[in-house]
Amino acid sequence: MRGVVMHAPGDVRVEDRPDPRIEQPTDAIIRVSATCVCGSDLWPYRGVQKVAGPTPMGHEYVGIVEEVGAEVGTVRPGQFVVGSFWASDNTCEICRAGYQSACVHRVPMGSLGSQAQYLRVPLADGTLVATPEVPPAGLIPSYLAASDVLGTGWFAAVAAQAGPGRTVAVVGDGAVGLLAVLAARQLGAERVIAVSRHGSRQKLAREFGATDIVTERGDEGVARIKDLTGGLGAHSVVEAVGTQESMMQAVHSTRAGGHVGFVGVTHDVAVPGMELFWSLVHLHGGPAPVRRFLPDLMRLIGDGTINPGRVFDLELPLDRAAEGYTAMDERRAVKTLLRP
Amino acid sequence: MRGVVMHAPGDVRVEDRPDPRIEQPTDAIIRVSATCVCGSDLWPYRGVQKVAGPTPMGHEYVGIVEEVGAEVGTVRPGQFVVGSFWASDNTCEICRAGYQSACVHRVPMGSLGSQAQYLRVPLADGTLVATPEVPPAGLIPSYLAASDVLGTGWFAAVAAQAGPGRTVAVVGDGAVGLLAVLAARQLGAERVIAVSRHGSRQKLAREFGATDIVTERGDEGVARIKDLTGGLGAHSVVEAVGTQESMMQAVHSTRAGGHVGFVGVTHDVAVPGMELFWSLVHLHGGPAPVRRFLPDLMRLIGDGTINPGRVFDLELPLDRAAEGYTAMDERRAVKTLLRP
Repeated sequence: MRGVVMHAPGDVRVEDRPDPRIEQPTDAIIRVSATCVCGSDLWPYRGVQKVAGPTPMGHEYVGIVEEVGAEVGTVRPGQFVVGSFWASDNTCEICRAGYQSACVHRVPMGSLGSQAQYLRVPLADGTLVATPEVPPAGLIPSYLAASDVLGTGWFAAVAAQAGPGRTVAVVGDGAVGLLAVLAARQLGAERVIAVSRHGSRQKLAREFGATDIVTERGDEGVARIKDLTGGLGAHSVVEAVGTQESMMQAVHSTRAGGHVGFVGVTHDVAVPGMELFWSLVHLHGGPAPVRRFLPDLMRLIGDGTINPGRVFDLELPLDRAAEGYTAMDERRAVKTLLRP
Repeated sequence: MRGVVMHAPGDVRVEDRPDPRIEQPTDAIIRVSATCVCGSDLWPYRGVQKVAGPTPMGHEYVGIVEEVGAEVGTVRPGQFVVGSFWASDNTCEICRAGYQSACVHRVPMGSLGSQAQYLRVPLADGTLVATPEVPPAGLIPSYLAASDVLGTGWFAAVAAQAGPGRTVAVVGDGAVGLLAVLAARQLGAERVIAVSRHGSRQKLAREFGATDIVTERGDEGVARIKDLTGGLGAHSVVEAVGTQESMMQAVHSTRAGGHVGFVGVTHDVAVPGMELFWSLVHLHGGPAPVRRFLPDLMRLIGDGTINPGRVFDLELPLDRAAEGYTAMDERRAVKTLLRP
């Protein structure tokens, strides 16, 4: 089969890779309908994260079940399925508490490489959620978004306790940040402040439900959010970047007793203890347990309530994956969808 | 009046200070029945925190109202009152959300110096809570504990979401840590693991409801807590020390999705972003909003349900305050009560 392999920073190729096969009786093989490039794929692409030799890429996927192992009971060949970027058994104590991304048997799907024609999904019963029937092509991008960016933005909004009566600020206007805006609105937030200085992203944030836009970053961004919230700061702040500046902007933009939900991968971030102490905020985040939210998100997509697929602004055949990486690296695209 | 003044690290004296007087119509003056030395008073005593000239000391207090300003309506002369170490109006939006320690009009009581015969309490209506009648002398230490260490330990346990069905670990065996054990138990925690290597403190932890004792610190302490929790970590962990080691022990001892409540003053602590990210814990803490809990805590003390005054293992007349500081600095005493 064809699949994306990163050889070194900036060097992404589409090559022949071995077809995956059932290795465990709990595995499924899916034919990938659509996959995409993640903001986190840019870390190795930019050389921030080490690339240890040729690496299959991708951890977001939707597809049609081709084959299942002997112990798989909840999905069957022919079904359209969505899975998270962590395979999880969905039965262990941690999964049952809603933290499937820390499942005691978790497998990172990134290690299997979903930017390919076929994909082995471990722990298929726990990981995959099927739609009632194969959806129309127009919904595929939205289901694909549920696999990571929507689920991650949703988790961030939940971690920030977005909800009725609350003002939510979202730091970061990538796909996750934009979908955190959508999530905050769906969760009932009264006011949603998007931090963005890019016209097209501001426009999408408005479509997703942002009520206010702040263009300033850092301390100026904090001051602007305080201005908008009677000097107190937002109740809920989503951090969806992963830099020191964005993390501290998030903490400082939150009122005492408020909640920060962070999902940006916090490379080189250190949270100063005294600032956290005096802020009196709640801080929660990490790799999103997308599986917790998948059934609800898939229902909202299926009935047309939400249209998260709008974050894909570049669509390419899998063989042109390298162009998709470049476009995202240069911020010409928010998110690239790949069709195997 | 007589009051404690710190002149330099290690140099604590009891001197004549001006009698406080009503300065604002919202003030009250109380005759201090008992006050005490706080673990945080040891930071300047040890030179970790700067002492900028002679500084009145103390922020914990119970006493009898002597005089109230023209606008004070909820307390009156002759009543026995307890207040927190932050004066707060208890009416602003932040107070109403339960974060009185970040009240928009807050005044740090430490700036007024409660280790003295009399004390001015700003925002008396918001800050002070009166008992139905003047309590018997035997209850005074417990009411005094409510002013800070009990309220702080209680907040830490609440921040860590101690409750039924949960295993709570407490890192730190000072007065706050010991009272977090008591709080966790009162809040219904199933199992309470105290981290302590001191026999007398272990004993008190057991009295307060600890079910297990861990003597190891750092990574070994983490391993021990994981052993006790099926390899997953505790649901709830209280951090009541304030060092890098104790903070990371707390984070690493918590299961994914669990909660860390931290109340140790986090001097020189920096929480590494990637460790926080991968831990998937909730982190919340800071200066405790003791006022939120005062009415409930005072009820539990008044009816004999709890006896937090047990943390005072040294009692001295105010004039011998310096001995109290030394005993705590040398860890010969958990906490020193001073009688003006």
